Amino acid sequence: MNELNDKGRKASDLATTIAQCTTKQKNDALKLIAKQLLDETAFILSENNKDLEAGKNNGMNDNLLDRLKLTKERIHDMAEGVQQVAALSDPTGEVLEGWDNPNGLHFEKIRVPLGVVGMIFEARPNVTVDASSLCLKTGNAVLLRGSSSAINSNKAIVSVIHRALEKSELPTESVQLLEDTSRETAAKMFKLTEYLDVLIPRGGANLIKTVVDNASVPVLETGVGNCHVFIDESAGKNMAVEIAVNAKTQRPSVCNAAETILVHQNWAEQHFEKLIQALNENNVEIRADNKARQLDSSLLPATQEDFKTEYLNLTVALRVVGSLDEAIGHIQTFGSKHSEAIITENKDSVEAFFNKIDAAALYHNASTRFTDGFEFGFGAEIGISTQKLHARGPMGLPALTSTKYIVRGSGQIKA
Amino acid sequence: MNELNDKGRKASDLATTIAQCTTKQKNDALKLIAKQLLDETAFILSENNKDLEAGKNNGMNDNLLDRLKLTKERIHDMAEGVQQVAALSDPTGEVLEGWDNPNGLHFEKIRVPLGVVGMIFEARPNVTVDASSLCLKTGNAVLLRGSSSAINSNKAIVSVIHRALEKSELPTESVQLLEDTSRETAAKMFKLTEYLDVLIPRGGANLIKTVVDNASVPVLETGVGNCHVFIDESAGKNMAVEIAVNAKTQRPSVCNAAETILVHQNWAEQHFEKLIQALNENNVEIRADNKARQLDSSLLPATQEDFKTEYLNLTVALRVVGSLDEAIGHIQTFGSKHSEAIITENKDSVEAFFNKIDAAALYHNASTRFTDGFEFGFGAEIGISTQKLHARGPMGLPALTSTKYIVRGSGQIKA
Repeated sequence: MNELNDKGRKASDLATTIAQCTTKQKNDALKLIAKQLLDETAFILSENNKDLEAGKNNGMNDNLLDRLKLTKERIHDMAEGVQQVAALSDPTGEVLEGWDNPNGLHFEKIRVPLGVVGMIFEARPNVTVDASSLCLKTGNAVLLRGSSSAINSNKAIVSVIHRALEKSELPTESVQLLEDTSRETAAKMFKLTEYLDVLIPRGGANLIKTVVDNASVPVLETGVGNCHVFIDESAGKNMAVEIAVNAKTQRPSVCNAAETILVHQNWAEQHFEKLIQALNENNVEIRADNKARQLDSSLLPATQEDFKTEYLNLTVALRVVGSLDEAIGHIQTFGSKHSEAIITENKDSVEAFFNKIDAAALYHNASTRFTDGFEFGFGAEIGISTQKLHARGPMGLPALTSTKYIVRGSGQIKA
Repeated sequence: MNELNDKGRKASDLATTIAQCTTKQKNDALKLIAKQLLDETAFILSENNKDLEAGKNNGMNDNLLDRLKLTKERIHDMAEGVQQVAALSDPTGEVLEGWDNPNGLHFEKIRVPLGVVGMIFEARPNVTVDASSLCLKTGNAVLLRGSSSAINSNKAIVSVIHRALEKSELPTESVQLLEDTSRETAAKMFKLTEYLDVLIPRGGANLIKTVVDNASVPVLETGVGNCHVFIDESAGKNMAVEIAVNAKTQRPSVCNAAETILVHQNWAEQHFEKLIQALNENNVEIRADNKARQLDSSLLPATQEDFKTEYLNLTVALRVVGSLDEAIGHIQTFGSKHSEAIITENKDSVEAFFNKIDAAALYHNASTRFTDGFEFGFGAEIGISTQKLHARGPMGLPALTSTKYIVRGSGQIKA
């Protein structure tokens, strides 16, 4: 048996059936999944424990073990998340546009499911539940490929989902897990254009790069964020310091955390000490350019490499700039087009920043940490797109849909 | 010098400048291009002639030579096309959504250019002008890679565009042509994620497959269409025959032409002869299944392969089906999700057809030949997307755009 091909074909065959399920049928299925997760908490935890034991034996580090670990509370949160997805409005079926042409043809553009979503992810088993619920809500079949280190947890969760779907009006195999977690099979999955409509990799930069470099199936790229906070000349002292500290330290391991702080020289001359003090108090290691070190010679020096780096920890690069344009130029050179913030009281500076910088999300007087489907008010998130096709920035349910045109005529032929 | 890298970097560097040009600046540039094309018709024709001579010497077939050939009239049409693009409304800058969140953040989603478009195409030199004008209108830089057989024509056209852009307020190198048309350089272009935001291949199935299989840059796939016309039981005789003949014969070489006609048995029992006669009169070679051959034993037999084939010529596969569901099942099995038509007077049949079939465009009582940006009323077309991400079906100017979120706050930080 060829598991990948069989499950791919099954997903593709079922996609039409799932796409035609009503919103109520899909919501009922989601509620059954939430309940089943709670009912089978003990089973999931005991299977998760096998992965944790194996991880410890294989020398997995504490950070990864923590990502892998499930608890009663985490399973409760997962079930809660599924309930929340059930409560969201269903984007499919929406008529996005409609018009008549002079020849009498009537056009409608309708939102439909993508079809089959291939989800490739690393150790966090909660992605299994998140991705499944978001795909089901939008009428998609999903083929999951998690990491080998979480295979027992993922198999357990998917078996729980299957037991819930058996009681529902959705096909049981709307959600499928690849049990073969070899690299060879993953490589074949990247090329499975016959059955998959999209691949969504979730995980570290290496995983995402591997998928982007090798996939023939269209990819929704998520991941890297080299984000900046620019403190302009007119920025209020307290607001600037609070936002810079929040963007850097509130959760440094995520893509929307700031990696470089740019400070206008005129602001720095007045308030630099306060900024440095606040960063120090939050245990941030600062790597500063020469102009910044002229203001505070105790700072470590930054290299060009520092400005390119997505630290994902409590390190920050810091540069003092002579003008708004210098800040914009820095971001254009080093930014990854993810999230960029300007702190200023000058409206012209805001508009120049918004116009000249190309990024998924641009902020005035707010932290970059808001780039997130929940903070945007989407109610759910399948990831934060770092590409420009299809979806950019936080992706809610509509990112899991496509469209079709339906055209009604009365015998029109092309002349 | 590394031409690909240099031109890619240049395009990427200029993208911000082009994105900020006003609609008037872009339209003025387009009008200058249209005028320059007309002014330099003789030069373009003489350079095109070099390609035609080389093609003849290399044994290029007449069909390809015709695609390659420019005439005074074709250049006039190209210039006309550029004028039409200038007259379209500019999608960039449009505020697509706006909302406030309870924490006081104000969000706007704004349409912006994609950035840098990589266009890979075959012998038709008119694509050079089409792609350039559509990309400029939407504020994108474009890097063109045409085929070696059209290199003199393409260089001439791009030099003409450059002389027009020199008089405009857009950067001259907004449009660039790769003069190195080797396969090795094309392969590197597929991977140039550092500078290119999207690749759009235009040409035959092999070209498109090569790009999709090998690209790391996101691809907008166009191309294959295995389209069907289904004549339902209640279809009017004349309308059904007219639409089937139009869909097959009006221009058989294009992706939205029909390749298979499905006929409901009850309709066939009454009107089959009329359909066959009309196809014969239009020189269509018919390959029929057994049920059809029972009605007309003179028809050639069809194989499974025939139902899979995108003929792109005056051949058609023909199958008699016992029910609407059998027709839908056939299309689900063999269709390429491009354009599918049902001819019927039964409203329930229409809705079932529209709901159950997943395709870019679905037609009731109209020819599949309408799947086209101009026929849809978009005023222009960069291609017909056969994928589900980003754009599906005919792609007008909005397909060449992305979005960004701008978020206005008053000191908000993430809790």
